[in-house]
Amino acid sequence: MGRAEFDFIADIRRRAAIKPPVIVGIGDDAAVIQSTCAAGEVITTDMLMEGTDFLYPQTSAWEMGRKALAVNLSDIAAMGAKPTAAFVSVAFPQSRGEAFARDVYAGLEALAHEYDVTIAGGDTNSWDGPFVINVTLIGEPLGSAAILRSGAKPGDVLFVTGAFGGSIRGRHIHFTPRLQEARRLLELITPHAMIDVSDGLAADLHHLLEESGVGAIIDATSIPIHSDAEAMADNVPPLRHALGDGEDFELIIAVRPEDVARLTNGWDLSTALTPIGYITAERDVLLQESDGRQTNLPPWGWTHEWAPPTE
Amino acid sequence: MGRAEFDFIADIRRRAAIKPPVIVGIGDDAAVIQSTCAAGEVITTDMLMEGTDFLYPQTSAWEMGRKALAVNLSDIAAMGAKPTAAFVSVAFPQSRGEAFARDVYAGLEALAHEYDVTIAGGDTNSWDGPFVINVTLIGEPLGSAAILRSGAKPGDVLFVTGAFGGSIRGRHIHFTPRLQEARRLLELITPHAMIDVSDGLAADLHHLLEESGVGAIIDATSIPIHSDAEAMADNVPPLRHALGDGEDFELIIAVRPEDVARLTNGWDLSTALTPIGYITAERDVLLQESDGRQTNLPPWGWTHEWAPPTE
Repeated sequence: MGRAEFDFIADIRRRAAIKPPVIVGIGDDAAVIQSTCAAGEVITTDMLMEGTDFLYPQTSAWEMGRKALAVNLSDIAAMGAKPTAAFVSVAFPQSRGEAFARDVYAGLEALAHEYDVTIAGGDTNSWDGPFVINVTLIGEPLGSAAILRSGAKPGDVLFVTGAFGGSIRGRHIHFTPRLQEARRLLELITPHAMIDVSDGLAADLHHLLEESGVGAIIDATSIPIHSDAEAMADNVPPLRHALGDGEDFELIIAVRPEDVARLTNGWDLSTALTPIGYITAERDVLLQESDGRQTNLPPWGWTHEWAPPTE
Repeated sequence: MGRAEFDFIADIRRRAAIKPPVIVGIGDDAAVIQSTCAAGEVITTDMLMEGTDFLYPQTSAWEMGRKALAVNLSDIAAMGAKPTAAFVSVAFPQSRGEAFARDVYAGLEALAHEYDVTIAGGDTNSWDGPFVINVTLIGEPLGSAAILRSGAKPGDVLFVTGAFGGSIRGRHIHFTPRLQEARRLLELITPHAMIDVSDGLAADLHHLLEESGVGAIIDATSIPIHSDAEAMADNVPPLRHALGDGEDFELIIAVRPEDVARLTNGWDLSTALTPIGYITAERDVLLQESDGRQTNLPPWGWTHEWAPPTE
């Protein structure tokens, strides 16, 4: 470890406030976490690579650092949990020098501060390859247990937060992880199942349904389509963007029928919460279109051959 | 996520036995760990990059996967802990195909199985860059608390496991993390402080001393020098290899004077356990050479100008 690297890590350590459940942070062979949460801890990890998950300099160092934490915060939200501690491993391109590294950490630390996350450990490297960052994030369930993908039951109503499609226009970098929404949700009810949408609305719906061993009927007309999907100007129907695009980082939530009124009456956040269908015992995943026709909804998110307008 | 990637992850998931403290493993937005360990949990992470931490194909895919877990196991040993759950993020070079990816996991899983570690989560990617792997490893202290770097006190005797220097001849890849040694140590005594040697014996000794706010006097003649250091045939004195090389993955242990007899009498493992010096209140780090002279031992591990024999 060179002197510059040591100073850089010493600075991160100085800025990282150690608070429960973290009792030992950066500076030892490992961190020590002493959680008093009876529901256990949730742990998620995501690796982002330049050229795949973001382009530089189109995406700034600050934004890349922020996104690396944000995608993990979205996973913690989907477990019905609050984040506590982050572990950050990086391979910085040597050629970009220390300013790049500092900007990455500044973006990450700003978001960590916003959500009260302690940066408790990590591994800082440099090399002649592209920028790579891995964040492992720990959290604690807000309720008596984590909300899994596998708990959905026939009859459950499927809700989604926010709107879908066209995230490539900027939301794939600048999204707000749905931690506040998960917290309000857990105050009102205990959902049967939850997942965040990273692969795409249809794809992640499939993941939830597969883990639960159930199917669903989705009402095409009720899917909230983001204005970014309308603005794509690529002649692809906005609904297809909404179902297939991915990186929306919204939540899909399976709610017991008897909890629906309490949830919708109590929901007081500005983020939309929209019912889009319901769980079935039959394992088919069906999209009911505006004409009443039901077609299979595959994971990639569209249901029939589509051709661009030919005028 | 493509079909091949999905199948690949499904296979890893099938092979990963879920057992306490892991209650939810691969297949959700996060894993769930419910530890009953009163001492809390220790968490460490390391990122290894091809070209920096290993060369391919000189180091095989299997060996790279094994090393990625092994370096983290070494950190867990240095906390006086046993490992429980691993989270594995990878960026595989697309050009090497699935066989490479399977070999990496086979190497990692073999070591995980040996030490009863559950692969509880991860993130699998491919790209056109070099191979990158990050492992985050969770563990539980074997005693009533984790053993930190910061607990060394004046008068403590410094012990080391094994022997040092010349790890580049193969031990930097094939080393055995000192988990068994840490377990036996904790059965016999409670050390004041511990660290594993990755940067080098002198460098990691400095880390331990800095965190503890103390100094040390090291007896140069007592440092166990590995036969690999003797075999380097580069005209560098073996002692300098032992002090400076790094990647030995041995333990440095600070032991209360009143515990020394119990430790040395009770030590029944084949791994050598050698006293190399003692802790001082003065913060200097001194190497006492065979002629009785004391010189400052800097983190890079040698004490005076050295010139190759000129015969």
